[in-house]
Amino acid sequence: MLIPQSLAYAMLAGLPPEAGLYASVAPLVVYALFGTSRVLAVGPVAVVSLMTAATVGELAPLGTATYGTVALTLAFLSGAMLLIMGVLRLGFLANFLSHPVISGFISASGLLIAASQLKVLLGVQAGGHNFVELAGSLVQQLPHTHGLTLALGAGVIGTLAWTRTALKPLLMGMGWSARTADWVTKAGPVVAIAASTALAWALDWQAQGLKIVGKVPQGLPPLTLPVWDSALWHALAVPALLISVVGFVESVSVGQTLAAKRRQRIDPDQELVALGGSNLSAALSGGFPVTGGFARSVVNFDAGARTPAAGAFTAVGIALASLFLTPALYYLPQATLAATIVVAVLSLVDLPMLARTWRYSKTDFLAGLTTLLVTLLQGVETGLVLGVGVSLALFLFRTSRPHIAEVGLVPGTEYFRNVLRHKVLCSPKVLSLRVDESLYFANSRALEDRINQAVARSEALDHVVLQCSAINDIDASALESLESIEKRLRDSHIALHLSEVKGPVMDRLQSTDFLHHLSGQVFLTHFQAIQTLAPEITHP
Amino acid sequence: MLIPQSLAYAMLAGLPPEAGLYASVAPLVVYALFGTSRVLAVGPVAVVSLMTAATVGELAPLGTATYGTVALTLAFLSGAMLLIMGVLRLGFLANFLSHPVISGFISASGLLIAASQLKVLLGVQAGGHNFVELAGSLVQQLPHTHGLTLALGAGVIGTLAWTRTALKPLLMGMGWSARTADWVTKAGPVVAIAASTALAWALDWQAQGLKIVGKVPQGLPPLTLPVWDSALWHALAVPALLISVVGFVESVSVGQTLAAKRRQRIDPDQELVALGGSNLSAALSGGFPVTGGFARSVVNFDAGARTPAAGAFTAVGIALASLFLTPALYYLPQATLAATIVVAVLSLVDLPMLARTWRYSKTDFLAGLTTLLVTLLQGVETGLVLGVGVSLALFLFRTSRPHIAEVGLVPGTEYFRNVLRHKVLCSPKVLSLRVDESLYFANSRALEDRINQAVARSEALDHVVLQCSAINDIDASALESLESIEKRLRDSHIALHLSEVKGPVMDRLQSTDFLHHLSGQVFLTHFQAIQTLAPEITHP
Repeated sequence: MLIPQSLAYAMLAGLPPEAGLYASVAPLVVYALFGTSRVLAVGPVAVVSLMTAATVGELAPLGTATYGTVALTLAFLSGAMLLIMGVLRLGFLANFLSHPVISGFISASGLLIAASQLKVLLGVQAGGHNFVELAGSLVQQLPHTHGLTLALGAGVIGTLAWTRTALKPLLMGMGWSARTADWVTKAGPVVAIAASTALAWALDWQAQGLKIVGKVPQGLPPLTLPVWDSALWHALAVPALLISVVGFVESVSVGQTLAAKRRQRIDPDQELVALGGSNLSAALSGGFPVTGGFARSVVNFDAGARTPAAGAFTAVGIALASLFLTPALYYLPQATLAATIVVAVLSLVDLPMLARTWRYSKTDFLAGLTTLLVTLLQGVETGLVLGVGVSLALFLFRTSRPHIAEVGLVPGTEYFRNVLRHKVLCSPKVLSLRVDESLYFANSRALEDRINQAVARSEALDHVVLQCSAINDIDASALESLESIEKRLRDSHIALHLSEVKGPVMDRLQSTDFLHHLSGQVFLTHFQAIQTLAPEITHP
Repeated sequence: MLIPQSLAYAMLAGLPPEAGLYASVAPLVVYALFGTSRVLAVGPVAVVSLMTAATVGELAPLGTATYGTVALTLAFLSGAMLLIMGVLRLGFLANFLSHPVISGFISASGLLIAASQLKVLLGVQAGGHNFVELAGSLVQQLPHTHGLTLALGAGVIGTLAWTRTALKPLLMGMGWSARTADWVTKAGPVVAIAASTALAWALDWQAQGLKIVGKVPQGLPPLTLPVWDSALWHALAVPALLISVVGFVESVSVGQTLAAKRRQRIDPDQELVALGGSNLSAALSGGFPVTGGFARSVVNFDAGARTPAAGAFTAVGIALASLFLTPALYYLPQATLAATIVVAVLSLVDLPMLARTWRYSKTDFLAGLTTLLVTLLQGVETGLVLGVGVSLALFLFRTSRPHIAEVGLVPGTEYFRNVLRHKVLCSPKVLSLRVDESLYFANSRALEDRINQAVARSEALDHVVLQCSAINDIDASALESLESIEKRLRDSHIALHLSEVKGPVMDRLQSTDFLHHLSGQVFLTHFQAIQTLAPEITHP
């Protein structure tokens, strides 16, 4: 089952089918040696292949030897970057891809891949730099649709979709055991491929204009070398970085999900090293960028792989296949491969996710939608970069407007609550503010503004007390803001007090002279502060 | 006193002296009409003039009419940007300049300005694109130093420094009143300027090679128009934005400091509009970029200005001066102006600030040092942009590694504390974790890692309880992480519980189905959680 998948993704990446086989041998072995997951299988995957096609397509004409060389240079650079990131322990960088951004990116990639395969399914020539151009070009080409190709493709898609959804319940309804039914269902794609290959051979569909895979050279992966060309490296640097990050995120999330099922752990920084090595080995053996894929890893997991040797055995299997089985692939119709890709990637498209995100958080929705639309309309790189940019900007924007609540005493208790939400006791002499965010440069001025506003409003004010229970950090800018707040309040004959300051924050404040200058006091609890400053409230 | 200052900053900006006078008239009136501070005085200031010189110097040769036109086009663009930002209420963007970045930038600017004035003080020609080039060029030119110029400059610097530090105590020691002593001290620069002008005239120093200001045209500010040239606008866009932001930050911090002394407030968004209008008026009246300056505003404040009319009166005074007094400036030595600039800007250089920041926070220090060094070595624009980038990156890095403490019960109380810092009670069946940071995409994986690690370590574990008292927000990515943590824990037969979830966070969680799926419970307090899950701890 891995073999047609490898061929399909090589085709998606714009490479000859054997490249997919080559990219599935050495990387598997290298990962088995260095990786921390016992079940992760490394090889070509859909999204990384799409990114490879988008990058290499800009730099070399499709179908040339240069195209293949650029692809393996891309794998080399990506591998080197992953390795360096692993050595520098930069695995945490992948955390800056938020879930809505990843989800929007994967959905858009799925749609782009499906659209790019439609031309194969229709048997026409079409192209375009984004989803709209591609769709437009496909619509123009519709009259030239090759009927047999379309019929075969639609048949395969229908069969696969039916196998995925309806076959298992049907078999089990017929009294088959769940295990056998499962096994048959999973064999669906293999049967579809074998059947369509047999039909294409028996009925000589090639003569009727159906495109087939054709001759796949027999032999082990060749020894290849990347191009040492600084202009090319410069052009590939950003795409290689993005491919590295996307591949790493995909691989780690697959690895973590599977590892957790057995109470095992994977080490993200070591994973970077292993994936880096895998990509370097792909570059040296005629391949293209690879990463850990979900579908291929689940096979390992279900087969109960408990040692890294599983990966090595799979590699031997694929190597044997590329030595001896490639003639059997000669009559495999390209439309069948395109159909398997379409079915695989459409399951990645998760638009309801956007609706769920909308209900939970408007800012997250905005980040996800931006990524989705920009990826579709401007391409994978711009989409990803802009998505990360937008999500970081929205996070910074949110933290720059902290929630600051004026609080009062809940009668008969020692608790303080927001005056706007609860019936609480306050003194006109004392202003109690609770800041629900760590203080840092982007939000310290908001606190200044809030206090200035409160002070300008009330003439009777003598004390301002900041309840610091949710403040996890105060940076140098925020400290200066506190100092200037304190100074301005002092100029207005108002004392500034703090309450419930956390241990680590207190430690750092004590390393400065802020607390010495402070016109007010630091109270352990806010109740103590009010007891001291406005006893008429606590003991009415 | 404002007149020599305006001349000096025009010279610093690379413009003829009268431009400084023109830039001090219309902007003052416009600010008085639209501004919210009653004492802020708008006009040329040191850092903005330096940024103007750096920008315009790249695009037009010094001393040409084009230079002046580019400078006023820069003021026009900057004014338009400020106005638009004000209308869109984008004043909060200035908050993303952290104090260490501003401080590093201002210190570096002060050093750059001082270095640029040294060539005037030495009476030589020198130049360079950064501090090192400038210093090197000055050292090369040292043999050509003009003795009289140097002597005069050194004399003025010495006098001003002495006036600033030693004169007031001396006068008061001689029995003068504090008020009179203060007045005399402040008149120091005026006396130095008048005296050196008189000496230059009486001893005909011009004939001995001393450079003087020369003819300053008499007359009111002219009506000028910016250049409508899209290529020029394109080149000026980024510098204009940076000048706008820096000018805005300087002006607002001066305005806030002075307003707070009288329990007044200023509205940052309205300030943007007023500064925008001021710069547009500067562009239309032969000026260059302006902003609210500290020195000139303090004059207003000390004079007790209570209405915006003070600004209008000052404008009339400067207009009268440019009508009638400019012949008196003919013999004013350029070295005297340079000396006043050097004394003024060196007081901006605050290197001990860096040391204080180092003691308080290493990350803030790094941001400040980067800004300082890059501004000195690469120029004002790169320095500022990189400084902001570094400070944001460091903030994101810090929040991406949240402090997660394993907590246990303080015996005999209901409080929970870090197991590493205190002697507390724990159950091997229950893991209590307190997360000291809001959960968002960049740190949610850290929580996953931490929990995976804990789970892989302890085989007896049945419950994980997250104490959420410091979590102010959970974004969509963090929610997905919680869901996958919950799922993985469930696969390992461990229940996930939450305690002390804040009201707004709880509201949002309840809008999802996370709480329905949750294998554990949500407890109001962490003590209740432990009471329920490990009663042997709470009642030993």
